[in-house]
Amino acid sequence: MGNGLAGRGVWRVEAGASTPAQDTLAEEVPVAIQFDGAAFAVMMASPSDLEDLAIGFALTECRLPADAITAIEVREVIEGIVLDITTREPAASATAPEPRSIPGRSGCGLCGSRALEDVVRRPATVGEGARLAAGAIEAALSALRSRQPLNAATGALHAAAWFDTAGDLMLVREDIGRHNALDKLIGAMRRSGTSAQDGFALVTSRASYEMAAKAAEAGIPLLAAMSAPSALAVDLARDCGLTLVGFTRPGRHVVYSHPQRLDGVAHGNVER
Amino acid sequence: MGNGLAGRGVWRVEAGASTPAQDTLAEEVPVAIQFDGAAFAVMMASPSDLEDLAIGFALTECRLPADAITAIEVREVIEGIVLDITTREPAASATAPEPRSIPGRSGCGLCGSRALEDVVRRPATVGEGARLAAGAIEAALSALRSRQPLNAATGALHAAAWFDTAGDLMLVREDIGRHNALDKLIGAMRRSGTSAQDGFALVTSRASYEMAAKAAEAGIPLLAAMSAPSALAVDLARDCGLTLVGFTRPGRHVVYSHPQRLDGVAHGNVER
Repeated sequence: MGNGLAGRGVWRVEAGASTPAQDTLAEEVPVAIQFDGAAFAVMMASPSDLEDLAIGFALTECRLPADAITAIEVREVIEGIVLDITTREPAASATAPEPRSIPGRSGCGLCGSRALEDVVRRPATVGEGARLAAGAIEAALSALRSRQPLNAATGALHAAAWFDTAGDLMLVREDIGRHNALDKLIGAMRRSGTSAQDGFALVTSRASYEMAAKAAEAGIPLLAAMSAPSALAVDLARDCGLTLVGFTRPGRHVVYSHPQRLDGVAHGNVER
Repeated sequence: MGNGLAGRGVWRVEAGASTPAQDTLAEEVPVAIQFDGAAFAVMMASPSDLEDLAIGFALTECRLPADAITAIEVREVIEGIVLDITTREPAASATAPEPRSIPGRSGCGLCGSRALEDVVRRPATVGEGARLAAGAIEAALSALRSRQPLNAATGALHAAAWFDTAGDLMLVREDIGRHNALDKLIGAMRRSGTSAQDGFALVTSRASYEMAAKAAEAGIPLLAAMSAPSALAVDLARDCGLTLVGFTRPGRHVVYSHPQRLDGVAHGNVER
């Protein structure tokens, strides 16, 4: 079917009765990332917006800015897809052992690491960012709902989207993996010259530690998640100045850190 | 707070009004797995049932059966938790380069691998397994709902549970990562002597390729997921004899492969 969708024959069971049917499923493809010809990581991903994925991954996992990348080749092979990233200064690139030696990853974002010391991240403090207009998060949640075509067809994909301070949708990317969706969004922001200081991100997933870390590495000042954050994600957000919002639902949400970017949130609470 | 829960001060926003509150969050901890003293993988996990995680991980990622493990030490260090697995025959253990050289992992299950060739799995065909009673999946779904204490407190955890053929709950494990939850369940099954041939598994998450692969590696004949499977998961399930059920909801579900283990599902559909 192309476009990240695949058809399969299935049996739908309802109230004990079974009916053969044709279903639309999300493709899931092994994607290998190489820097200057050297294997770096493999992840399962949705086969769309792969240049965005490469640029976002290079930034959030290797602190390699987009202007350090001179070419990205997307190559289909029998086993999956290879993303071949050519860097301006190979010796200084991500293939060097620092900062993380074997940065595989996807679900938790750090699983290529073999040692605990590789896990701890120290993202720089995010910039001040813009203050959101009242109702911006509500507007974003509502806008995103109709802008997830792959998920609408399959029910299987996460989305990460970028909004201006009024909550108008600027960019959206989908992937079966929440970290990939965020990396694709971050890559798309870099490619389109979108400043992370002028808006905020909303993701359809939970906010794990690595989601907060990726947002901070990209300089995003506010990350809203539809589901729960982890305690470690909240702690990282507090440390690096990131406003973390969770349980983003119609009419309500919870603010876990740095509420100053949100209109009308009292500043009286002690962060602990 | 212990027990995988952590309290943090937050701001609850509802209908534009903000109220300071105390929230209960899920802990997320870096967990390193070592075999015979050699670093093997690091993942983000919930700090509970870690011996189960070690045994399940060793089986599904390294094909190391429980009786090849002579000791598991759980060690808290500053950066997180180390699971030190001692094997009967270190030379033949998972630290050898086969079958996967750098099996980090968590979200997608394979992210420690650096090369596409490491990704493809060939689980053995699962055993015949038992035929489920009519209504067993319904009963399982209903039973699991009240047996997820960490998720009830935080809204942040996945669960994987084991049921007999009538849908009675036998074992349940929770984790912030769906793969960890399934590994913990598989480890708990091994430790309690539960045969994979006498029941089925239900997970609260989607069914990705690696979820289907882990189930097959553990010899589980039927895996039901509350959310969507990927196309690759369906293909793997068809190849290795696994019955894969998705979108498990009250009153309905979808069967993607090998329906013979389910009562009343027509066999007429062509798998394609």
